[in-house]
Amino acid sequence: MSFYYHGFSHRTEHIKPSAIREALKIIAQPDIISFAGGLPAAELFPREDIAEICARILADPTMGAGALQYNLTEGYPQLRQWIVEDLARDNIVAHESNVLITTGSQQSLDLIGKIFLNPGDKVVVENPTYVGALQAFSAYQAQYLTVPSDDEGMRVDQLENILKNYKPKLIYLVPNFGNPTGVTMTRYRREILHQLAYQYQVPIVEDDPYGETRYSGDRVPPIKSLGNGQGVILQRSFSKTIAPGFRIGYTVAPTEVINKLVAAKQSVDLQSNTFGQVVLSEYLRTGKLEAHIKEICKVYAHRRDVMLDALQKYFPKDAHWTRPDGGLFIWVTLPEGMSTLALLQEAVYQKVAFIPGNAFFANGGGENTMRLNFSCASDEMLVEGIKRLGAVLKHQTPAFPTALPAFLI
Amino acid sequence: MSFYYHGFSHRTEHIKPSAIREALKIIAQPDIISFAGGLPAAELFPREDIAEICARILADPTMGAGALQYNLTEGYPQLRQWIVEDLARDNIVAHESNVLITTGSQQSLDLIGKIFLNPGDKVVVENPTYVGALQAFSAYQAQYLTVPSDDEGMRVDQLENILKNYKPKLIYLVPNFGNPTGVTMTRYRREILHQLAYQYQVPIVEDDPYGETRYSGDRVPPIKSLGNGQGVILQRSFSKTIAPGFRIGYTVAPTEVINKLVAAKQSVDLQSNTFGQVVLSEYLRTGKLEAHIKEICKVYAHRRDVMLDALQKYFPKDAHWTRPDGGLFIWVTLPEGMSTLALLQEAVYQKVAFIPGNAFFANGGGENTMRLNFSCASDEMLVEGIKRLGAVLKHQTPAFPTALPAFLI
Repeated sequence: MSFYYHGFSHRTEHIKPSAIREALKIIAQPDIISFAGGLPAAELFPREDIAEICARILADPTMGAGALQYNLTEGYPQLRQWIVEDLARDNIVAHESNVLITTGSQQSLDLIGKIFLNPGDKVVVENPTYVGALQAFSAYQAQYLTVPSDDEGMRVDQLENILKNYKPKLIYLVPNFGNPTGVTMTRYRREILHQLAYQYQVPIVEDDPYGETRYSGDRVPPIKSLGNGQGVILQRSFSKTIAPGFRIGYTVAPTEVINKLVAAKQSVDLQSNTFGQVVLSEYLRTGKLEAHIKEICKVYAHRRDVMLDALQKYFPKDAHWTRPDGGLFIWVTLPEGMSTLALLQEAVYQKVAFIPGNAFFANGGGENTMRLNFSCASDEMLVEGIKRLGAVLKHQTPAFPTALPAFLI
Repeated sequence: MSFYYHGFSHRTEHIKPSAIREALKIIAQPDIISFAGGLPAAELFPREDIAEICARILADPTMGAGALQYNLTEGYPQLRQWIVEDLARDNIVAHESNVLITTGSQQSLDLIGKIFLNPGDKVVVENPTYVGALQAFSAYQAQYLTVPSDDEGMRVDQLENILKNYKPKLIYLVPNFGNPTGVTMTRYRREILHQLAYQYQVPIVEDDPYGETRYSGDRVPPIKSLGNGQGVILQRSFSKTIAPGFRIGYTVAPTEVINKLVAAKQSVDLQSNTFGQVVLSEYLRTGKLEAHIKEICKVYAHRRDVMLDALQKYFPKDAHWTRPDGGLFIWVTLPEGMSTLALLQEAVYQKVAFIPGNAFFANGGGENTMRLNFSCASDEMLVEGIKRLGAVLKHQTPAFPTALPAFLI
């Protein structure tokens, strides 16, 4: 007997595998220098501290059994309590009932899409923006209103017209060292954004997975901390500060929003893994996070500098790039007419990889841009990789590729 | 400035907090005897073995860093490999590309809803059925076609008419020791179900979180193992056999379905937690699972027997209940006209709790039924709890409650 699957839902037409995740699989060759990923440096994970904490938790019959058992959908209470205390550092007043633990920041995006978006609803995004947000919202058949970004973040001067004329459901942005650009939104623009969002009553989704990894410049207040924060849904993650393997992030929002997110989360995965939540909670209680972040930042700052120097040395003069104060990425813009997709083909042949920027543009564009990740490479790899890329670049003629790599189509 | 959230999606009207999860919070009083939960017994978790494995993984720089890092959306390859080997025990032929690791079985239900269901699509479910499935599918605005169950599982004799007349998108069932009834579907009915599903080309979602916890009777072949299994999506979990705190389940399906599930999962949480996957994979490689399951089953079988004996002794003669061969639940049916919701009020006053059966009926009904969980209580609690419930029951008059507990409305 044979069986044919024919009845997939309409939304599946909008759920595409991530070009990046697919590309990473193919790029994963042992001898390639890859600036394509977005991974934190694995050698910096606090592995020994975590080992100690796992041993301590599991040696205790009550705590150990608790860490292995089901727990609340809202999240492990002690972890939420730590988060509430931590938010106070940023002048964000929250109660535990304002915090939902999620399966990484990505789940927060999915749940927000689930409770806010009807098919065809509009979401304001930066251009370029985080591709995972586009994936999450597109699964709810969102449409995008794009606002360009520059070195000071989203161009809020272009926002009011959009809010007035198109009545979007949400404004989504990554204000600190955004993926892909590495840019940080200025305080001034945050205030304007915040005011406009209130004026037009459009919730802001402030996605902040990188905010703690600042290694130069001064901390800029979260949008959530401006005014009463009522109109802002903030999401953060432990993936970049401790380790992504636990898949623990969190969302901070008014109770009415959290209640809807909790009901949605019950239907989606009941709760995020208890074990990871207990381990992180215990790790945070040791007070070691601050010193650990300092250590990470030192290493990342160095790698950023090595890449920036190499770009200066090996990239053509008509290329431009961002100089991030944190996060994991540098964003390169080549002259108009250049195609980084075509360049990638030659680059992979030269055993170096990056992500063509087009994937981060909600409504197309950015063919002359690329995202470079610097967090996972040694000094030698950073220099050699940029040198090779620069050489490929200088031979690149401004033309469309004749054959795209299959995984990027 | 004030902010009002007004634009929630239409689907939120169908996303209700689980009456059970909400009830559990309120029932959670230290001195109550609760048969309401559905938790595996925490004292049986292989805590010491897991401690040893965590220590071993984290002591190894490569393996430890890997367990803390991002991994594939599809799931940790070694874990999927173990699953493929394990499926062969049940004569299920699968390749690793047929296996997707999910954040508990619940996520599988959400992803299946996501890729199959348009608003108004129909899903066939048993009556009663697992409430988490109703939550997951309802979030996609499913409608339900209910088929009654008896001691041999879903009444497949009533299925053909439904398949012919209503063209459902999916058939969902829990064939082994189902939640809430504890009933196992016979092999004969599985074969009929399988044939009908092929004839009408409707995929079967075979939800099997309890199948390994069989403590009496003979194993019945999974529906997935009948014929080529092409039309069956099987989902299993490590929550009941090892520990639910890792939130690791898996889905076995044809590649065309897995590919869509993987794309959906990327948008939903990128991947399930790596750490839990690596720990489970290493635990499974020790070969200790079989002996561990035997140990669990011995304890659960004993608790089931104690509860069954107490029911015999203390419940009125006109009550009926199931005698499960595995799983965590006994299902009680009182005479028509009785209300277990009203009974619960009095029961909680008498410091004993259960879940009224109505929550498990997709389209209403079952007011005279209740679910009793026996996995987490001592012999004394089992006997004392059933004794108290029996006493409450005998004073219960067949009438509707005057005031429902707030959490069950």
